[in-house]
Amino acid sequence: MRQIRTDLAMESAGAHGAGELPGVSVSGWDAGGVQITEVLIENEEGAKLLGKPVGHYITLECDGVRQRDPDARTAVGVLLGEELARLLPEGKGPVLVVGLGNRMVTPDALGPLTVDGTLVTRHLYSELPHLTDRRMSPVCAMAPGVLGVTGIETKEMVRSMVDAVHPRAVIAVDSLAARSVSRVGSAVQLTDTGIQPGSGVGNHRSALTKDSLGVPVLALGVPMVIYAATIARDAFEQLAGEDETMEQDQALDQLTDELLAGSMGEMIVTPREVDALVEDAANMLAAGINRALHPGLSDQDILTMMN
Amino acid sequence: MRQIRTDLAMESAGAHGAGELPGVSVSGWDAGGVQITEVLIENEEGAKLLGKPVGHYITLECDGVRQRDPDARTAVGVLLGEELARLLPEGKGPVLVVGLGNRMVTPDALGPLTVDGTLVTRHLYSELPHLTDRRMSPVCAMAPGVLGVTGIETKEMVRSMVDAVHPRAVIAVDSLAARSVSRVGSAVQLTDTGIQPGSGVGNHRSALTKDSLGVPVLALGVPMVIYAATIARDAFEQLAGEDETMEQDQALDQLTDELLAGSMGEMIVTPREVDALVEDAANMLAAGINRALHPGLSDQDILTMMN
Amino acid sequence: MRQIRTDLAMESAGAHGAGELPGVSVSGWDAGGVQITEVLIENEEGAKLLGKPVGHYITLECDGVRQRDPDARTAVGVLLGEELARLLPEGKGPVLVVGLGNRMVTPDALGPLTVDGTLVTRHLYSELPHLTDRRMSPVCAMAPGVLGVTGIETKEMVRSMVDAVHPRAVIAVDSLAARSVSRVGSAVQLTDTGIQPGSGVGNHRSALTKDSLGVPVLALGVPMVIYAATIARDAFEQLAGEDETMEQDQALDQLTDELLAGSMGEMIVTPREVDALVEDAANMLAAGINRALHPGLSDQDILTMMN
Amino acid sequence: MRQIRTDLAMESAGAHGAGELPGVSVSGWDAGGVQITEVLIENEEGAKLLGKPVGHYITLECDGVRQRDPDARTAVGVLLGEELARLLPEGKGPVLVVGLGNRMVTPDALGPLTVDGTLVTRHLYSELPHLTDRRMSPVCAMAPGVLGVTGIETKEMVRSMVDAVHPRAVIAVDSLAARSVSRVGSAVQLTDTGIQPGSGVGNHRSALTKDSLGVPVLALGVPMVIYAATIARDAFEQLAGEDETMEQDQALDQLTDELLAGSMGEMIVTPREVDALVEDAANMLAAGINRALHPGLSDQDILTMMN
Repeated sequence: MRQIRTDLAMESAGAHGAGELPGVSVSGWDAGGVQITEVLIENEEGAKLLGKPVGHYITLECDGVRQRDPDARTAVGVLLGEELARLLPEGKGPVLVVGLGNRMVTPDALGPLTVDGTLVTRHLYSELPHLTDRRMSPVCAMAPGVLGVTGIETKEMVRSMVDAVHPRAVIAVDSLAARSVSRVGSAVQLTDTGIQPGSGVGNHRSALTKDSLGVPVLALGVPMVIYAATIARDAFEQLAGEDETMEQDQALDQLTDELLAGSMGEMIVTPREVDALVEDAANMLAAGINRALHPGLSDQDILTMMN
Repeated sequence: MRQIRTDLAMESAGAHGAGELPGVSVSGWDAGGVQITEVLIENEEGAKLLGKPVGHYITLECDGVRQRDPDARTAVGVLLGEELARLLPEGKGPVLVVGLGNRMVTPDALGPLTVDGTLVTRHLYSELPHLTDRRMSPVCAMAPGVLGVTGIETKEMVRSMVDAVHPRAVIAVDSLAARSVSRVGSAVQLTDTGIQPGSGVGNHRSALTKDSLGVPVLALGVPMVIYAATIARDAFEQLAGEDETMEQDQALDQLTDELLAGSMGEMIVTPREVDALVEDAANMLAAGINRALHPGLSDQDILTMMN
Repeated sequence: MRQIRTDLAMESAGAHGAGELPGVSVSGWDAGGVQITEVLIENEEGAKLLGKPVGHYITLECDGVRQRDPDARTAVGVLLGEELARLLPEGKGPVLVVGLGNRMVTPDALGPLTVDGTLVTRHLYSELPHLTDRRMSPVCAMAPGVLGVTGIETKEMVRSMVDAVHPRAVIAVDSLAARSVSRVGSAVQLTDTGIQPGSGVGNHRSALTKDSLGVPVLALGVPMVIYAATIARDAFEQLAGEDETMEQDQALDQLTDELLAGSMGEMIVTPREVDALVEDAANMLAAGINRALHPGLSDQDILTMMN
Repeated sequence: MRQIRTDLAMESAGAHGAGELPGVSVSGWDAGGVQITEVLIENEEGAKLLGKPVGHYITLECDGVRQRDPDARTAVGVLLGEELARLLPEGKGPVLVVGLGNRMVTPDALGPLTVDGTLVTRHLYSELPHLTDRRMSPVCAMAPGVLGVTGIETKEMVRSMVDAVHPRAVIAVDSLAARSVSRVGSAVQLTDTGIQPGSGVGNHRSALTKDSLGVPVLALGVPMVIYAATIARDAFEQLAGEDETMEQDQALDQLTDELLAGSMGEMIVTPREVDALVEDAANMLAAGINRALHPGLSDQDILTMMN
């Protein structure tokens, strides 16, 4: 069973071609220039096939985001707000936004930068109880840092904060790795399955899921790198043409594993302008989060309060 | 009873002139070009006089630090390591370094930047138990962010981390405000009394003390700003000369309170080169922390591992 | 003759009270929530009175800018574009935008950051001659750095670039120092008199004027600091009440000179949130410049191309 | 004739195997843990073979640099200072250090960051003529920015500065692209041939040579990226084993050209920790430049004055 490495469920599904996949349903539509793809992994068979847990995976894509068009970011932010609101569980308690990753490593800074743009309100409720009337939610946020900088597992840190603030849900934001160059810096994936170990730009993410944290975990990410193995594969497939055999395929899998185990494994493949793209992506995600959690605020209110 | 606003106990003591103060003992010496001042607040009388809790306050000063001399930073770092080791309680469990302040506000970034330079080791102990033999300690670190960015009180966040990792002590690092221009960016204060509410560059620090956290709290800071009221006072005192009266003094106190309650209260007074000074100071503090906690490592080891 | 220290002509004029000033005319109006003040220094008498050269000084103020309202920045940017277009000389050749100041000193980074947001086009004209039809102008930009970092006088560097690219005008952008706290980070001054020596946040700006460069020089700036002496003066005036005498006034002048000659002279007084304010201000100035120079582009075009 | 893409002459030479190359002489030695390789391209035949102009290319390599060991950086800095001093022409006039590249694109920021660490002195000579006695040289520096940000060709900008300050030599610093992962962030190349068009991290560097500027140009660089095509090649060669044929080789060349012409061409391959590595490399280069130009200063003096 062939699995490609990608944090995007839609790429995992796409690698299997156009036909029906057992335990997986894929649908897609366009909304105002944004392509939305929803992958539903229905059961363990589908999960095994795509290498991802059972749940919903929604991807929003818009070419303009990569061309740094602010209108495109706004369009994606609006739709993201709607989808996020749909997946967020009802209930009491604040929403806790967790920005994963290392602020000092540019393509891994998406989570911390998104936290910077998130409109936090939890601390205002004691003084300003009328906020509830304005259809704002209590929101808090943290950027826990990475294990090498803190000496504390991310899971441990988030878990203890969940115990302290009793959120009704966690939204975990992370930089992803994708298969296709065209999705880097532009596609947004939203899932209700949380963060899986080993995903993301940093090598050793720990799992942040309902199982590990005790509350529902939505995960939100944008691919900021592609796997180096992608280049080797693309080159090979282009060279081999259509008639790639199963043996060649397995040889290539093994080969890229070897490459990544060596010095190439420390390398990342990223767009030249990643410094700017990661800021754009963080603004877009923060806009979506703010819309979903504070539906009573106008765009203008959110922009003003975000700053 | 006259109290000047400063986070440095030595300046509070100094404002009372050269004589003996009830409940306060001050001593000073020079060590290799570094001036060390130790203020011991012995009882509540002394505490009330200086506006600071009972405990030890050690200040290290070296002119060269402000002139950005790396040798001066090294000299202070070495002495700081010794003093810190002397105050650190024995015991089991890691030391938790907490970097207070807002990374996005230059003079308030001292805490988070110090965490960046702290050599964390707690996560290595399960894999590398022989580390203990090398006279290294388990160390973990966090930069909790400020209330306006997280919606969570710093105390709440640190408290929950203390509950999770059971440290033998917390070292809290913070930007301070001082009275004297000459100490900005250069003097280091170390105290065993923790962080007091209302101190620091951010207006509303919450208390981090043994009472609030349940473990000993050492606090470490460098003044990065001076109080705006200082300038008004300096100007006034220079104008009035020696014969300032008690009434004038009180009038000035009231005046500066009014100034700070107005738009001037949002202003900070800081050296032009504060962007560079705060990085220097963070490196100096991190070097001191690393020496105190990992006495078995050479300077070279520490430098290499810090990077 | 009393002169207050400020880079804003409107503050210099305001310090003389509400009456008529010889050689100076002041007018003001409101445009969509933005207060516009135009100071015209008509002759040498006015120039001596205000300590600034003969010419036009237009200040745009909007409270919302300081509160970080993006709408307020847009409103100021639009008006700035119009005023700038009005002052720009007709003619052949590109416009050269010069961002003065030191990128590494937060409040002094306004110029370099504005250059980052300026839409440069000069290099496209050889390949895309139809740009002219779209009512775009050839624009080039430089951030020459400061003397301590380059070893080259700013004037020398700009002069040699003027000789190379033959611009029809220079727009010099600089951080200013103001008298009033309320104008820091929010008021924009535009003048046709160029940059005067000794102004700005850095101590020793060299003159950039039509005399020194040989082409018209417009200067554009936002105050990012206030003079430390301001605080002393404000305190004193509040203390002394209405009945401040001329002798007291002179004493205070002398006093603040002494303060600034000492260690206080290295200090700047700046808003706590200056890191964010200087970015906002740079975006606002770049938007104004882009509108003035590329009137054929829509706001959307400019935003997209700026990124 | 096979040419691999790399900015390092030693890699171009190495691709041809161990034998003698016509018009090229290669020598290597070890100095205190630093491997030095000198490639001398003697004539046009050698130049054509390696795809680089006639001249000297000295590469300094030290594993510790990539591991972020400060001792390793110091060792390379010392040797670089010696080699640079050897190549610098005698004569009157300052040395002009030019930092190429885009400060806002992390791996392309090496040049501007090196300028930040360069000890400039040219502006001090009029006030402090005794500097000459201390074996310091007049040094000035500029970071001209990239064409897309300035609208001015780098060559044009440097040329006009050369006309203004009449340097005895230019030292141009640039981020390079290499073939081998192990050299990224660690190998330093020094050459007396200047900067060639099309090299570096930015796509369209203009030539900075004695021909184009009228004064000798030394170029100094560290690879911060590898060519994406490298990965494809490495994968392929590993797959094909030893018996790669000439046709396969050519097919692969064509293939990687195609890859780079597509969306992959915008991608860069860079170490995960490039943010930190580029700062280390800039410090190392600045240390070498400062030693070469100010031999009368001790290391301590240089460190202090650099800050």
